[in-house]
Amino acid sequence: MFDRVFVNAVDADGNPLNLAVREGRFAAIGPERPAIGGAEVVDLAGHLVLPGFVDGHIHLDKSFVGDRWRPHRHVTSLRERLAIEKQELASAGPIVERADALIRQAASFGTIAMRSHVDVDATTGLTNLHAVMEAREKWRGVVDIELVAFPQAGVVSCPGTAEVLDAAAREGAQVVGGIDPTTLDGDADGQLDIVFGIAEKRGVKIDIHLHEPEQQGIDQLHRIASRTRAAGLNGRVSVSHAYGLGDVAPEVVDRIAAALAEAGVSIMTNAPGDRAFPPILQLRAAGVRVFTGNDNIQDAWWPYGNGDMLQRAMLVGYRSGFYTDEELGVALHMATEAGAAVLGKSGYGLKVGNEATFVVVKAPNAAAAVAAVPADRAIVRSGQFWGESSRVQFKVTAAGVGSAG
Amino acid sequence: MFDRVFVNAVDADGNPLNLAVREGRFAAIGPERPAIGGAEVVDLAGHLVLPGFVDGHIHLDKSFVGDRWRPHRHVTSLRERLAIEKQELASAGPIVERADALIRQAASFGTIAMRSHVDVDATTGLTNLHAVMEAREKWRGVVDIELVAFPQAGVVSCPGTAEVLDAAAREGAQVVGGIDPTTLDGDADGQLDIVFGIAEKRGVKIDIHLHEPEQQGIDQLHRIASRTRAAGLNGRVSVSHAYGLGDVAPEVVDRIAAALAEAGVSIMTNAPGDRAFPPILQLRAAGVRVFTGNDNIQDAWWPYGNGDMLQRAMLVGYRSGFYTDEELGVALHMATEAGAAVLGKSGYGLKVGNEATFVVVKAPNAAAAVAAVPADRAIVRSGQFWGESSRVQFKVTAAGVGSAG
Repeated sequence: MFDRVFVNAVDADGNPLNLAVREGRFAAIGPERPAIGGAEVVDLAGHLVLPGFVDGHIHLDKSFVGDRWRPHRHVTSLRERLAIEKQELASAGPIVERADALIRQAASFGTIAMRSHVDVDATTGLTNLHAVMEAREKWRGVVDIELVAFPQAGVVSCPGTAEVLDAAAREGAQVVGGIDPTTLDGDADGQLDIVFGIAEKRGVKIDIHLHEPEQQGIDQLHRIASRTRAAGLNGRVSVSHAYGLGDVAPEVVDRIAAALAEAGVSIMTNAPGDRAFPPILQLRAAGVRVFTGNDNIQDAWWPYGNGDMLQRAMLVGYRSGFYTDEELGVALHMATEAGAAVLGKSGYGLKVGNEATFVVVKAPNAAAAVAAVPADRAIVRSGQFWGESSRVQFKVTAAGVGSAG
Repeated sequence: MFDRVFVNAVDADGNPLNLAVREGRFAAIGPERPAIGGAEVVDLAGHLVLPGFVDGHIHLDKSFVGDRWRPHRHVTSLRERLAIEKQELASAGPIVERADALIRQAASFGTIAMRSHVDVDATTGLTNLHAVMEAREKWRGVVDIELVAFPQAGVVSCPGTAEVLDAAAREGAQVVGGIDPTTLDGDADGQLDIVFGIAEKRGVKIDIHLHEPEQQGIDQLHRIASRTRAAGLNGRVSVSHAYGLGDVAPEVVDRIAAALAEAGVSIMTNAPGDRAFPPILQLRAAGVRVFTGNDNIQDAWWPYGNGDMLQRAMLVGYRSGFYTDEELGVALHMATEAGAAVLGKSGYGLKVGNEATFVVVKAPNAAAAVAAVPADRAIVRSGQFWGESSRVQFKVTAAGVGSAG
């Protein structure tokens, strides 16, 4: 009846969980051990089973993972940072190889889907996008990768970028990006006209990097929320970082949170280490979808990160003062379900009929996994153990052996 | 000439490193491969070698590591937290077993020394201290454990505690603790008289938990610095947390930093996730020794932590905005050399004549190790691989085989 049965696991709450697989899909999931029949039996030794992780914000074209270590250099301006980045990347290996190395590393931690921003501008055109598309192709069916055409150097202030953004959307970027419309472009409506225009024309989603602080950031969010409502893009617009939400008083957050929830604008935060960031629980309470991602990983912007979304969930919780199991569960939700919803990933999660893909973590429940970030894991894809790096060994009983029923 | 030679490693800067061992001690360390002779050769495959980690602040009697997961419960007062802690601990396994489990877990990450605070008060007396001493005994020669008699419930405000603190120092606690002299005891001089009195009488060191905020915390630090100078305890007094240092203006920090440096008072911070903490670089620039520790690990106070000091160094850097290699090196220094100095650990570090104990990390240099916290490690103690959990496999060539000299 089943090809393989994974027994003796626990679910997010620490309750018994057994998973039966047929033809690579979940055929039964529940607390009771299913009828074994002629199936192969894998004893998961009481470990936790989680759905695969979703990295909602990564920059696959920037990372030096897979290349040599490059010490971070302090700068005094964004222009200087961009110049250093260009210089460092010019001497690094090809994007397709570095992107491949980072996807592999993320996958080894249990990531099964990601949204990658990719730099596009009038100078580089679609070079980076094409390279990341090539890396993405290698991972088709293993890691779902959604691509954002990201105008790192600005839109209005960087002539020719609007056309490149449009070309990127035409060539397969599923999301059009934006960045700091007021502080970088000095023309909020100018940038948003272009970004929303492309989204409507090409039927793509939107994800805007917003580092603008305090009330300036809040004003921008209100602008984005009204344009989203006006364009009927509910559920298709995200704002990444939205630092301003961490800078203002709770009652200001309440007002903008209501507007974001009504418009269906999602917020992405990576929980930065040394500056304020959005109050996650307050946004969620208002009905805003909040998701997370690793953002920069070992690149010219900063040295941190390793691609592990469980470490990211821990950092989200650590920075947010999440202590209870429920709060730790919110951090995990941001790295799983919420990200999957933003990406529109179909067939996601531990449900009968879905692809039998999951992560086994040596932890007694989800809260413990987020708090301690155990390295001991195994990845199962379509019912099969995946990768060289399974750090846990399990007892496997061959099909039909010792199976009484 | 040597018993064993570890070749093909890199040092903190990523430069070639080879380590020769004789009778469990370093006999040669340097960039050149030493004469192999009849030694066994271990190829470290280009990985990083670091000295063992030092956890400068841990609570071995509180953790539920090795016991079952206990969801965190929100409280509204310190009194309520202490009541919940007592209740949870009463239903947990014996302290000696839990402490043993946590020491084992920390050791598996590469910790070789720690300072553990242990609750003492008039009710529990020395029960916890004796239990942790028993666990410590099992680890003698593997993990050096310094014990602090910690008056969690206050000193002056908890009658009988002064006598218990004194008894603890008499029975072998090497450090006498204190806690929030003003806000918890309402009598700063009363508590400090007792703590410094015991330190002078018993010749023990001092480590005071100081959560007092803003100027109140700064005033307390000045009080502690002057008493340290007066008692001639330079280098023997630490203040843990010292949150106030994170709350005040830089020029206020400058003044107290000068006083702390002159008095030889060290500061411990674990880089908390959601509140301000001491500005590490500013304190170090003034000459203050700053060290770190994991503090609470999966206990009634909070769910985070796993005993890994490399993860702690990452959190210190992440929270402090440390991006350059030099800054990341500061975070590592706090988890190694600085802690070793506070504990007065002799023969510490990668030096000829010292015990040949070190951690191998799959990273190209120390900065990369701090930034990414690789789980792939191996622990070498007295020249031998240690523990079940070596996550990296190395090529070992038997003594005398293929060794041309």
